[in-house]
Amino acid sequence: MVHRAINFSAGPAALPDEVLKQAQAELLDFRGTGMGVMEMSHRGEVFMAVAAEAENDLRELLAIPANYKILFLQGGGIGEFAAVPLNLLRGGAKADYVNTGTWSTKGITEARKYCEVRVAASAEDRHFTYVPDVAAWQVRSDAAYLHICTNETIHGVEMPFTAAPPDFGVPLVSDMSSHILSRTIDVSRYGCIYAGAQKNIGPSGLVLVIVREDLLGKPHPHCPSFIDYSLQAKNGWMFNTPNTWGVYLAGLVFKWLKAQGGVAAMEKHNIAKAALLYGAIDASGSFYQCPVARADRSRMNVPFRLGSDALDAEFLQGAEALGLSQLRGHRAVGGLRASIYNAMSIDGVAALVNYMQAFRQRHA
Amino acid sequence: MVHRAINFSAGPAALPDEVLKQAQAELLDFRGTGMGVMEMSHRGEVFMAVAAEAENDLRELLAIPANYKILFLQGGGIGEFAAVPLNLLRGGAKADYVNTGTWSTKGITEARKYCEVRVAASAEDRHFTYVPDVAAWQVRSDAAYLHICTNETIHGVEMPFTAAPPDFGVPLVSDMSSHILSRTIDVSRYGCIYAGAQKNIGPSGLVLVIVREDLLGKPHPHCPSFIDYSLQAKNGWMFNTPNTWGVYLAGLVFKWLKAQGGVAAMEKHNIAKAALLYGAIDASGSFYQCPVARADRSRMNVPFRLGSDALDAEFLQGAEALGLSQLRGHRAVGGLRASIYNAMSIDGVAALVNYMQAFRQRHA
Repeated sequence: MVHRAINFSAGPAALPDEVLKQAQAELLDFRGTGMGVMEMSHRGEVFMAVAAEAENDLRELLAIPANYKILFLQGGGIGEFAAVPLNLLRGGAKADYVNTGTWSTKGITEARKYCEVRVAASAEDRHFTYVPDVAAWQVRSDAAYLHICTNETIHGVEMPFTAAPPDFGVPLVSDMSSHILSRTIDVSRYGCIYAGAQKNIGPSGLVLVIVREDLLGKPHPHCPSFIDYSLQAKNGWMFNTPNTWGVYLAGLVFKWLKAQGGVAAMEKHNIAKAALLYGAIDASGSFYQCPVARADRSRMNVPFRLGSDALDAEFLQGAEALGLSQLRGHRAVGGLRASIYNAMSIDGVAALVNYMQAFRQRHA
Repeated sequence: MVHRAINFSAGPAALPDEVLKQAQAELLDFRGTGMGVMEMSHRGEVFMAVAAEAENDLRELLAIPANYKILFLQGGGIGEFAAVPLNLLRGGAKADYVNTGTWSTKGITEARKYCEVRVAASAEDRHFTYVPDVAAWQVRSDAAYLHICTNETIHGVEMPFTAAPPDFGVPLVSDMSSHILSRTIDVSRYGCIYAGAQKNIGPSGLVLVIVREDLLGKPHPHCPSFIDYSLQAKNGWMFNTPNTWGVYLAGLVFKWLKAQGGVAAMEKHNIAKAALLYGAIDASGSFYQCPVARADRSRMNVPFRLGSDALDAEFLQGAEALGLSQLRGHRAVGGLRASIYNAMSIDGVAALVNYMQAFRQRHA
């Protein structure tokens, strides 16, 4: 039996055992070719079939309409912070951004290289612990797009209206890196959705872009070709050699998701996991504290702290000893964080909750 | 016994069996952590050690001087076609390029987005079958840099003076994607060397950049952060989440190279392999033809053809039946191509040569 930790990493994050075991079995000989997936031409028929399967399975999982292109590119979410304005300004000079945390802030900083950015709403006043009321978002009608981050990985804030986001009459662009495929969404309400793969899709070094076709065709003159959505869409995202291993792993994850019952089933599962963990925090009489407004708490990333840095450290050490791994909070905010993506089982969360209860009793 | 083809892919290309077997063994549990390398934070101590080992081993293998930064980025060679001008123009408005084939040409096209490009020399007049005489290269003294592609993967042309390239008084930048680590080089003669990983380093989705420190600090205002050499150098190439699996595999390849005796030993091995294959072509009485000037033939990519497309096709089919894989030439030039990177053994080349001789005898 291989030793497996209960892995709460925020990303690169745990992958399903079944996916890893299949990748392991096929590593030196994929489908009888005598070659691993990493060793074959991306334009050969074997890999092209892998790529098509991944794309088709994803289209099915998210019910992506036919007028949206799926692109598997490189550069992760931070790459998209540049790629979004470079592709979606479409000759325009302004874009609006909602600022709900570290990732929104980084996106805004990057976008300012290419256009005038207005912050339509910000949660900075309360340390990014909530989603600003949509009624107060100030979106310009001539903004090229409105950018949101529907789940802030570091602050643990998730927009509860992700499935049916507000419509301000401009294309809506969302960074869904840390919760894509964890809940049902209506893709048709977005102009563009992107997600770094290393949380809910596959390994790092891969980024997924879903973009409405009518937004293509007007890249910025300085847009590098390898992140040019229009060029990549025209070339089946193979204008340059893609991260073939990443696409293959993503494809295995998509098949695993389908076997679990698809995104709706995962959403139920994720609601149950989040309820269990937040329940334990809220029932602890403030021994454990989560700073995020209840309505806006992320189902994927659960930040919490104990009464002191010393207690946090002791908690972490005890967790590691039990195989509860990577619970340290992001250095930007400190404390602890449990990331409970699709690949985390309810048993894994229950093990954490049991430890939390035992630790609290020891310190009561 | 796992079935392994003799894999002549131009890239993504064959990886050493030993490397794949180690990656396979560690896929679900790396160094007793209970996590695969793909599943852990890039900033955690376990992966940071992997990253440092890869960097140190590469520095040793290529004797990279201390005043050069090593960066593991994303986007492959085509990404660098944009990243090079975006980082190395340094406020300048012109750059010079030598055009020796498809990859040089693509680099020139991309660079023209950012600056005025002069072609210092071109081999287009003879269908990119040779390296233009260095004495005739016209390099402007005020060019921000001179760009060369020291090995053209598609045309099979390699600059024989790669180890000691000419000095025109401007920083020399080389795309070494398809022959890095196959021969000794003097890094100090280059301002910047880059290489997509998927030929001689590891899987696709990773690109290596080696850049002299004094060239950093003046990125183009439109340079996306994730390909900003200066920013990435300052952040130990972790301004964004790197392709951690790619870096890990590259690290295993570097250790494998050291175990083989390093780059000098690989060069001997590669000279022997190339001699065997070109020898078979040249001894075939024009049954097999390689169009490249003898002095400029690549040791890594050997393009050849038979007397007709029909014969090429028959040759390919027979090769596949024997497990000699991915010998089809690039669609841009047709014919056949054997890519014999570091991971290709001399026995693999001998098997191809034996087949070539038998095939010729059958058609004599």
